[in-house]
Amino acid sequence: MTRTARKALIAFQGERGAFSEEAARKLLGAGIDLLPCPRFEDVFRSLQEGAAAGAVIPIENTLAGSVHENYDHLQRYEFPIVAETNVRIVHNLMAPPGVPFSHLRRVYSHPVALNQCLDFFARHPAIERVTYYDTAGSAKMIMEEGLGDAGAIASAVAAEIYGARILRRSIEDDRRNFTRFFLLRTPEYTRRNNPRIPPNAQWKTSLVFSTRNIPGALFRCLSAFALRDLNLTKIESRPLRGKPWEYLFYLDFLGRVDSPAAQNALGHLGELADVLKVLGCYPRG
Amino acid sequence: MTRTARKALIAFQGERGAFSEEAARKLLGAGIDLLPCPRFEDVFRSLQEGAAAGAVIPIENTLAGSVHENYDHLQRYEFPIVAETNVRIVHNLMAPPGVPFSHLRRVYSHPVALNQCLDFFARHPAIERVTYYDTAGSAKMIMEEGLGDAGAIASAVAAEIYGARILRRSIEDDRRNFTRFFLLRTPEYTRRNNPRIPPNAQWKTSLVFSTRNIPGALFRCLSAFALRDLNLTKIESRPLRGKPWEYLFYLDFLGRVDSPAAQNALGHLGELADVLKVLGCYPRG
Repeated sequence: MTRTARKALIAFQGERGAFSEEAARKLLGAGIDLLPCPRFEDVFRSLQEGAAAGAVIPIENTLAGSVHENYDHLQRYEFPIVAETNVRIVHNLMAPPGVPFSHLRRVYSHPVALNQCLDFFARHPAIERVTYYDTAGSAKMIMEEGLGDAGAIASAVAAEIYGARILRRSIEDDRRNFTRFFLLRTPEYTRRNNPRIPPNAQWKTSLVFSTRNIPGALFRCLSAFALRDLNLTKIESRPLRGKPWEYLFYLDFLGRVDSPAAQNALGHLGELADVLKVLGCYPRG
Repeated sequence: MTRTARKALIAFQGERGAFSEEAARKLLGAGIDLLPCPRFEDVFRSLQEGAAAGAVIPIENTLAGSVHENYDHLQRYEFPIVAETNVRIVHNLMAPPGVPFSHLRRVYSHPVALNQCLDFFARHPAIERVTYYDTAGSAKMIMEEGLGDAGAIASAVAAEIYGARILRRSIEDDRRNFTRFFLLRTPEYTRRNNPRIPPNAQWKTSLVFSTRNIPGALFRCLSAFALRDLNLTKIESRPLRGKPWEYLFYLDFLGRVDSPAAQNALGHLGELADVLKVLGCYPRG
């Protein structure tokens, strides 16, 4: 019993109600059991130690870029990516039930969230911005403290979990703010459970590779895909620290990793790259 | 007089003592006059309105990725990049002079900085982490309030500006945390002032281009550089919002934009890309 219960946990970084939880619900349904972790590294460790059966991690954001730290963990821990999803980052203003908008004097949230709602604060100069360590944590705090003049900015899921009432929806300055999340599973979980694959799914494969930075090196590496008509959906270079002329590349292409074209492309890329690691193959989100 | 004084200002996002100020000093010397701005967009506006003669912006970080927002502003405002530098993000614990380490009960900083010093807080569980809207702002606050049991985590420049005393240097968990910054100038400033170019400088050119995502499209675009032995130092794709199958690419290559090889490569790339915009050509940092 205990073992089964533990195996169902999905680890994520942050407090309950974080955007990673919204991604986990989108990927696995609202009925999942969650394991909130303080750091990304703790998320990966919980998978390794068997405390969780899966994990949901952010990998890139349309405003803030790729989360290199999670690419590093993906390479080190080698848990396969089995699904992806995109979540729009919607900032909602909430308060304890019974506190009307006109009573708000302070609004708590993570400074990144506060800075993404500057138009709202410009329109309401009487409301003070107060920083808090976490968006969802700020929702939890205003409810626990029962503050009569304070609100929080957090996700709709956080409002639901902590019982806060949403006073203003979607107060962010820029609505084109999306985060892409990966679902990771332990190889044991994948072996024991046949994941449900949507019929007619289009597949994506994610990999990293490194090359010496000689002119044309990347061009030759990309020929492995171009010559086989494999379509790229992401390419990003990252300088390798301590190796001034070497680069790591993140690459996603459309296709199953076990298709003949992909196998040939990976064989070809393997001849050209110093390091090549497939991070996962999953239905396109 | 006023005009000259205003023209010398360098705009940056954040409070005095932010890491952008450290980058500005590295690029232009410690004697510069600064214009702190609340948002990145305000930095660009201050250049456009003539309130500043230059700006320093972060463009990518080794842990957190590219700052897409600033790539967007670079394309919209068209101020050329004239220099780059890399700054290591060093988090220092500081307190008002006379407050010893043993008196510290609370440490204020931006949550991202606090989360990058978790090993320090694990070793000192009696010290509470308190979030603040800004790293440099937390140094300013502990000095203004004259708190006897509180410290801040911020840059060495912030300690110097606000008169705080550094109690522990470099308490960040990961020392491989670097941010790359660009210096922007108005075209008028560049015309009137001959920028000093280091002799034997190696040059870098930054550009953005977009293609339709047909298989091999990027491969063909990169042939423009590979066929002319131009070495890339950065390539990154970014999905174009609202155009599901189109991508924007950020690309840096080594070379002067006005060299024959670069001119030919840009001509070739122009045949293949839908949009092509050179963001600047500058000595390698």
